[in-house]
Amino acid sequence: MFNDFKLADDRPVYIQLKEYLKKMIMNGHLLEQQKLPSTRELSTLLGISRNTVLTAYADLEQEGLIYAVKGKGNFIGKVETSKTPYIKLNWKEKVNEDALLADELDLMKHGVRWKKGMISFNSIAPDEKLFDVENFKRAFLTRMSIEGDIVLNYGYAKGYKPLIDYLLHYMEIKGVDISNKDILITNGFTEGLDILLSSLAKKSGRILCENPTHHSALKLFRLHGYDIHGIEMKEDGIDVCQLEKSLSKTDYDFAYLIPSYHNPTGIVTSSEKRIEIMKLFSGYHIPIVEDGFNEELRYSGSHLAPLLAFSGRGNNVIYISSFSKILFPGMRVGWILADKDLIHSLESIKRARTIHTSTLDQAVLYQYLHDGYFEKYLKKAKSVYKKKYELALHACNQYIPFKKMTGDGGLHLFIELENGMNARTLLKKCYQKGVVFSPGDVFYTNGGGSNTIRLGFSRLQEDDIVHGIRIIGDTLKNEMEVKQ
Amino acid sequence: MFNDFKLADDRPVYIQLKEYLKKMIMNGHLLEQQKLPSTRELSTLLGISRNTVLTAYADLEQEGLIYAVKGKGNFIGKVETSKTPYIKLNWKEKVNEDALLADELDLMKHGVRWKKGMISFNSIAPDEKLFDVENFKRAFLTRMSIEGDIVLNYGYAKGYKPLIDYLLHYMEIKGVDISNKDILITNGFTEGLDILLSSLAKKSGRILCENPTHHSALKLFRLHGYDIHGIEMKEDGIDVCQLEKSLSKTDYDFAYLIPSYHNPTGIVTSSEKRIEIMKLFSGYHIPIVEDGFNEELRYSGSHLAPLLAFSGRGNNVIYISSFSKILFPGMRVGWILADKDLIHSLESIKRARTIHTSTLDQAVLYQYLHDGYFEKYLKKAKSVYKKKYELALHACNQYIPFKKMTGDGGLHLFIELENGMNARTLLKKCYQKGVVFSPGDVFYTNGGGSNTIRLGFSRLQEDDIVHGIRIIGDTLKNEMEVKQ
Repeated sequence: MFNDFKLADDRPVYIQLKEYLKKMIMNGHLLEQQKLPSTRELSTLLGISRNTVLTAYADLEQEGLIYAVKGKGNFIGKVETSKTPYIKLNWKEKVNEDALLADELDLMKHGVRWKKGMISFNSIAPDEKLFDVENFKRAFLTRMSIEGDIVLNYGYAKGYKPLIDYLLHYMEIKGVDISNKDILITNGFTEGLDILLSSLAKKSGRILCENPTHHSALKLFRLHGYDIHGIEMKEDGIDVCQLEKSLSKTDYDFAYLIPSYHNPTGIVTSSEKRIEIMKLFSGYHIPIVEDGFNEELRYSGSHLAPLLAFSGRGNNVIYISSFSKILFPGMRVGWILADKDLIHSLESIKRARTIHTSTLDQAVLYQYLHDGYFEKYLKKAKSVYKKKYELALHACNQYIPFKKMTGDGGLHLFIELENGMNARTLLKKCYQKGVVFSPGDVFYTNGGGSNTIRLGFSRLQEDDIVHGIRIIGDTLKNEMEVKQ
Repeated sequence: MFNDFKLADDRPVYIQLKEYLKKMIMNGHLLEQQKLPSTRELSTLLGISRNTVLTAYADLEQEGLIYAVKGKGNFIGKVETSKTPYIKLNWKEKVNEDALLADELDLMKHGVRWKKGMISFNSIAPDEKLFDVENFKRAFLTRMSIEGDIVLNYGYAKGYKPLIDYLLHYMEIKGVDISNKDILITNGFTEGLDILLSSLAKKSGRILCENPTHHSALKLFRLHGYDIHGIEMKEDGIDVCQLEKSLSKTDYDFAYLIPSYHNPTGIVTSSEKRIEIMKLFSGYHIPIVEDGFNEELRYSGSHLAPLLAFSGRGNNVIYISSFSKILFPGMRVGWILADKDLIHSLESIKRARTIHTSTLDQAVLYQYLHDGYFEKYLKKAKSVYKKKYELALHACNQYIPFKKMTGDGGLHLFIELENGMNARTLLKKCYQKGVVFSPGDVFYTNGGGSNTIRLGFSRLQEDDIVHGIRIIGDTLKNEMEVKQ
């Protein structure tokens, strides 16, 4: 007995001993009223200090697992364990249609699995090698020294006040009229959109969006039971003629738009088009949910304000964003900037569901922004991503026979293959050669896009970008030859 | 011009200058083609270094807000701002019934507001003065040095693997059979319960629970449209006779139980009763949602295993918990431990809604637990809370004329006043004397409990506990005299 006790790692020894004994008690290897070795015996037996054994015994006694009898030693106490016949329920039958649909639409479960060593164009997450962990640590330590105890206790559903104020200022500088607007901090963009969809009255039950569009948004629209009407993309943004036609013919609850580095096409909506869009929607009194996705990542070019800025003192734009595609997505901080009355409603849904977003994350992010580390980081990130972008663009032009390619910068390119080519077939072949990418069909509202692919290059090394694209191109050429 | 530029705080000066100029451009104080002062002029004018001005100008040029003409200087670029007529929507009319109900049930919005300097018995959050911020910092720095870049990038919907493994082990030591079970990490207990409710098929649409019970859970049950059937509490837990009667007569989708330091009554369900409960539910094949609330906070007494441990190899208990009432609730980390199939379903709802819980929070919590800081902290916390508990208990016995008082430890006491006394009337009077508490009616399933109050003492200083309880008692005595 006790000879299978092994010090497994760098944890405090008294905890390891306590857990070891507790487990033996719980699984019946030590029985009620059984005498434990004296602390001296056990310390000799296990080669650990007697104090360690004393602490472990004291803790076990405190938990009611052992008891001491003066002059006699320590004994195992009475521990109730499972005595009832166990039952098995079939949980697969107990989940509802929402859960089944969420499973069905879960790309992480059903997508092609990336394996170590593969070149993956799947991700548009930031390259963690770029993270300035040192400045992040600095921001953390600064905030902790200012109010460590406060940020570790409960906060407010609306969010951490200094961060809210910072973001309001940040958006005001982008030209947004913040009077009569407010911010709700959320667990990233996704929770923001989900809370909004959970709170809006469904009238027509229809949503307008660009086609293709962000698959996570599509998933949420579907989970919330909306009909989705997609409008084609032109080189400079959504097809405004089609948009006008749709708006004039049909009622929509709202539109969902991604004006900058549109996911998946990478298109940046021009300033002129932004104004056109805003005029149209103002005319029809239909709200816009603007996805602020990656607008920070502009490598160059003329100034572009978010749609929200064009709405001026109006309140028909709901802006949802996060820095997650650029900065620390592991932290899950996003925000909704919208009309005050609306935010007041959303706040209660937020509170009911998750109380509030991690105050620690919000506070450290605030400090990181406040101290100017974000600006510095953004410069570095932009220059690295720009280089990757240019490399990817060049390689695609060189190796991939495409019908159309879009992507004005950002972290990905979108490619339309010749008609009749199937991206999933191509993916299977490329997978065998160690390269994966996102088949574009997942971004389409209407089952289209079978001949499209999205190439995210943010996390790849430069030579892997070129090498991977070349493999995709060669594989595609082979496919095309076979087809002919 | 430029004379209203003020260096407001400790942020990098170039950022402040950039933001200042950007704001002037966006709000039209600087017009298109207008010439900016030379970097030398502006640096002299504002008393800042020329390099600072150079950096700010370079950033503004990069953003397309200004342009340089060789030999001539810097000029304001073309900036599109709001030109469309703005429109106002009535958002109050656009939210749905769920949002209205969430607002109505939002105690933070409609409860009595605590003011600075008041003695508040509202909270059962941990006392932040107890937090060992230094060890927390240590855990943070350790984890960051091990894999800082990893924890700041995207993680997995199910949670951070080392934390999941730690918690599985942690629960196994509590006597839980973890074979065929799995864990989903959530943003605290609340998100765990919400995700579960969002995923379970509604059959009878009825839920069983203790009466009174946790108001946040009640809120979620109501938001999800369940009928709630409350069973009275006895001194050692739920009334098993009543429970059996209800189970034999009616179908329920599941039961929600808080066996330890039940909120709000503070009652700890005895071991014998836990076994009785498990036998009953096994017989009726009805699942139990077990709220692990505060089971870590046992000051003394015999060993108690969670209901989940009594279910053995069965799968009818869904255990949801967090350390939030003891440790760092600002971090929002909770977990669901349940049948593998069920967790597999919940994972997709989690991913659809919030992608995943902050990896940073999970990783630091993991390190904090792993390094044994939690054990150490818990000992300190228990001894402080125990003292507060005994003080509160004594003061209530001394000053408050009650019909019944419960609370076996934990962070709060629950008091039933004499029949006919109204807790909300009492609260109003006490408020005027600078003392607030939670009226107990918010915890009742059926509109009862108008003569009950919950006193949370965790965050109060010792003398405030006694002083506050004395004020409540005196005010109550006055009320009772008036009534006679």
